[in-house]
Order: sequence, then structure tokens, then C-alpha cells
Amino acid sequence: MISFDDIQEAYERIKKIVNHTPILSSRTLNNKVNSKVYLKCENMQRVGAFKFRGAYNALSQLSESKKEKGVITHSSGNHAQAVALASKILGIHATIVMPNTSPMCKVNATRKTYEAEVVFCQNSLKSRHQTTEKLIQKNGFTLIHPYDNDFVIAGAGTAALELLNDRPDLDVIMAPVGGGGLLSGSSIAAKGFNPNIIVYGAEPMNADDAYRSFHSGQVEINEDPDTIADGLRTTLCERTLQIIRKNVDDIFLVSEEEIIEAMQFVWERMKIVIEPSSAVPIAVILSEKVPIENKKVGIIISGGNFNLSEFFDEFRKL
Amino acid sequence: MISFDDIQEAYERIKKIVNHTPILSSRTLNNKVNSKVYLKCENMQRVGAFKFRGAYNALSQLSESKKEKGVITHSSGNHAQAVALASKILGIHATIVMPNTSPMCKVNATRKTYEAEVVFCQNSLKSRHQTTEKLIQKNGFTLIHPYDNDFVIAGAGTAALELLNDRPDLDVIMAPVGGGGLLSGSSIAAKGFNPNIIVYGAEPMNADDAYRSFHSGQVEINEDPDTIADGLRTTLCERTLQIIRKNVDDIFLVSEEEIIEAMQFVWERMKIVIEPSSAVPIAVILSEKVPIENKKVGIIISGGNFNLSEFFDEFRKL
Repeated sequence: MISFDDIQEAYERIKKIVNHTPILSSRTLNNKVNSKVYLKCENMQRVGAFKFRGAYNALSQLSESKKEKGVITHSSGNHAQAVALASKILGIHATIVMPNTSPMCKVNATRKTYEAEVVFCQNSLKSRHQTTEKLIQKNGFTLIHPYDNDFVIAGAGTAALELLNDRPDLDVIMAPVGGGGLLSGSSIAAKGFNPNIIVYGAEPMNADDAYRSFHSGQVEINEDPDTIADGLRTTLCERTLQIIRKNVDDIFLVSEEEIIEAMQFVWERMKIVIEPSSAVPIAVILSEKVPIENKKVGIIISGGNFNLSEFFDEFRKL
Repeated sequence: MISFDDIQEAYERIKKIVNHTPILSSRTLNNKVNSKVYLKCENMQRVGAFKFRGAYNALSQLSESKKEKGVITHSSGNHAQAVALASKILGIHATIVMPNTSPMCKVNATRKTYEAEVVFCQNSLKSRHQTTEKLIQKNGFTLIHPYDNDFVIAGAGTAALELLNDRPDLDVIMAPVGGGGLLSGSSIAAKGFNPNIIVYGAEPMNADDAYRSFHSGQVEINEDPDTIADGLRTTLCERTLQIIRKNVDDIFLVSEEEIIEAMQFVWERMKIVIEPSSAVPIAVILSEKVPIENKKVGIIISGGNFNLSEFFDEFRKL
């Protein structure tokens, strides 16, 4: 299991490359929940998500021969963009396996902005794995898993570390939980920084595998979870489950409507663009499911990648 | 004409009441324009716009007898909300004259959140003025003009002052120009802070009265300007024209498409919600109409009030 030292070392490694993201607060939000809430804005991280921290940390730790052979990951989400950008910066060849149903804007961004190679597969988990496996066997690529990887988790934990360095007086740290990389890393950072800090996870009711796993002690599965928080549809792995069972104090669930309400609140009142996954911890505090009265609460805003092209196309027609 | 001292005094008066707004920057934006750009996020000011600074400063300076009689303004925009909130904080009765075509959400926010009295008028400039004038004569209200008022201008200038206190090394300050309150105040703050700072205004081509007034030396009019930058449809007054002619180095114009492009860029890449008026200076630098290469440029993001309810209603249907 990774330690607080691992996260501190990861931070030393990546701090000149990542954005030191701002911490925002809102009088309206504080009054609503009767506590002081600090949003760690990883939506303003490079590639628009905390994922860049873990990807860069993992890639920079590869041996020279692995770097030369290149890396691979399968995703059309934030982790893929993070691996692509980190690879570009480090001069590593990156292959991203994407479903052939991915929006062309995302494919083009990965190819043009980050200069990664895109390989298409069928739109199924099986096809993704098979395509990836074949390319690894053929080319000797190293798979960069989005969360089942100690360096990725340590990198993810640097967001909470940076937050605590800036605001050492926090009582509570909250993060959304999907595969558990961010929550694991955040929990090790928080408890290592100060063992009295309470760490909470936040998860959509419609993808409550982490909640169930946390209570049962084994990795529980969600069959095809139906949530708009698309970053949180994945399930824990053994590695993240163990860390979360050891360090996290509780996990809270919220409905889809609560997620959208929270997202709208943050866009309208705090004027920042966050993706649905990032609204999940905000939904937990707004729906008063967690006792935080008079506490100082840090929330990791995991990302801000949300397709706005249709919205602006409509706007152009006005 | 107000002085740098007036702005400093205004800031002493309001600094504990206003939000000290954050300054954001973006690697992508800096690379695109080959300079360092700092956004002063007044979209994160109370009521979501810089207008709160001027309204609070003006209201706090009223004599006791004027405070007792109450204030009035006619607007359905940011200034009205600012006057309403400042009045609530100072315990002053506020009347807001709004067209009977105003969206109910705005009317309700003004009534419920800020506890101001709303009086409806016909949707014409003439009806607004007549309704307001009648109420002033009947009740002895004090009119709080959105920009033709020294205290409002001094308050508006505190955003640039706060920005310069945090980043004293700026070479250029830019602000959008409508009635000219923000640009006037910013220009006095900037030149007073350091006479070498260059001050630029940014205006929609479709509402180019300030540009024409700046060059002709007299207040030019726009008949019913057609721009999405709804905060910039007003024209200068003699007071703001004189300040702008004295302190502003140039005014640049941008098209509607350039404004929308800039707005989309800021939402998508910088992850903040800005209103169309605030996108106008960003459009000026993105379209390379102004020489800022290798300079440090501060831009006042005037506000972030943009109706997102339809967008989220659509989102709920998915």
C-alpha cells in the first residue's frame, strides 16, 4: 500500500509540470451548508482534470526501455487525454484505444493537440481489452491503468496534498469515487498530513459499487450503471478497496437529480464549469447527508470536461 | 473628475464587504496570444458582477436622510441586483423599476433574495424613465445611476486596484466598455497606480458608440444596438467620456462571432462561466487586434450572469 511519503515524492516530481490549481469558495454555499467549503479546482488542471497528475507521475517513473517502447491505455475520457499529454511532454509514444463511437472532436483533440496515436475498437469492454492486449503483445507497450496503479494513485493524491499545504486547517476532505484512484490518493494524503482529518467519499446512488464494497469488504460490481456522472461508472479494484477501507470514514450516495441540482448550483452561483462527476460531493453536502456543521471542508473538484459545443451552436443561432 | 485617491478611499470603504476575487490564468491562452494574461474574476463577485462594488460604495455614501427615504434604479441587469443587495446589507429601502417583460426568475430573485421592491413598467426606455421619475417625485427616492455617478465609478475602479495590488507588474489593463463606468474607473486606478500602464477598452462592433465617441470627442449614440453583449448596449455619458478620453490609450472592436468564440474558449478551456460582455476583451486579444506580445495583461472579467436554466432543463431530459 502506498504511503504519505509516496505522495510527497510524487508531488516533488510533478509540481513544476502540473498547474497549482486555485481554491475557490462561495459565501452562498457556505451559508447554505453552515460550514466553510473550499473547492480544489482540478477542473483547471491541465487537460481539465486531476488525471494529469497521476498519468504524469506514472509515466515519468517508467524505465528508459519502457519509455522507448511506448505506453497504451483504453479510454475516451480524462485519463486518456492525461496519458496523451504526459506522453507528449516526456517524449513517449502513446496509443489510445477508443471505441469507434467516440465523438470526432475527442478523437481529433487526442490526435492533434496531444499527438497520440488513436486505435479504434468496438464499443464494448471486451473489444477494448482485446484490442489493447493485442497491441501490448505485438509492440511491448506498457499499460497505464487509470487507477489500478500505485504511481497513478500517488499522483492523484497530490491534489489533496496541495490543497492541505495551502489550507492546513481543514477538518474534512471529500472526493468523488469511481474506480477509487482519487479517493484512495486523497485519503492517504489527508490522513498522512493530519490523522484527525475526516475523509468522505461521494458516489452516485445509481453506481453504488464503492459504497457496497466499502461495507462488504469485497469488490462489488455494477452492471452497466446508469448515471450522468460518467467518470464514476467504473468499479473499485482490490488495490483501491484496501486503501479506502483503511482510510475513508464513510461514503455517501446521491440521486441523479441531486447531482444535476448541485452541478447547476456550482455553474450558476460559483461561475465555474464542472463535469457531473465533480458535482457528486457538492450534492452530498447540499442534500445534508453528512454532518459538516461549522467544519472546514475541502472538496476535490475532479474535472471540468463537459461537451459545450451544442450549447454554443444553439447560442450562435440566436 | 474622480482621482486615484477616490478609488483608494472607496476600496477602504468596501473591502470588507466585497469578495476579494481570484485572478486566473491559462497556459493555453498565454500560448495562443504569446503573452501572460491574468483574468480578474468579477464574475465571482457578489451578485456575479463588478457592479456590486460601485453600488455599495455609492449607497454607503448617502446622507442619513437619503438612506431613510430609499433608493431607486431602473434596470433588469447586474446593476439592479447590485443595488438591491447593497441596500439590503445597509438597511436601505430599494425600488427596482423593471420592464413587465422581465423573466420571472429575475423578478423573484430581486424580490426574494435581495428583498427589494419591484415596480413594473412598459418595455421602453421612455416608460422606464417616466416610471422612475414619478416614484422619485412621489417618494423622494435617490436615483442610483449605473455609471453616471462618481461613487459608482470609483467603486468600479476598485476591481482594477485590487488586481494591481495582487499583481503590480502588469503592463496592460483591459476592460469592456458599455456606459463606461468600469473602463473609467479601471483607467483611473491603473494610471494612478502606475502611469506607464497601458489601458485599453473593448467594445462590440455592433455597439461601437464608445469607439466613435473616443475619436470624435463627443457622446455618440447607438440606435438599438444588436449585440449579444447585453451589458454593453448603453452609451457613454459626458462624465465617462471625459475620463476615457484622458486615460484610455485605445478602444478595439470585435464582431459577434468573435465574442461567441471567445466566450466558448473561456468556458471550455478555462472552466469559468462568463457572460457575453466579459468575452469582449478576450475576443480582442484572441483576434490579435492589439499589440500585447510578451506583455503582462490584466483583463477585468465583468460578470458571469448568464441564464442556464434552459440548458439544465435540457440536460435533465437526457
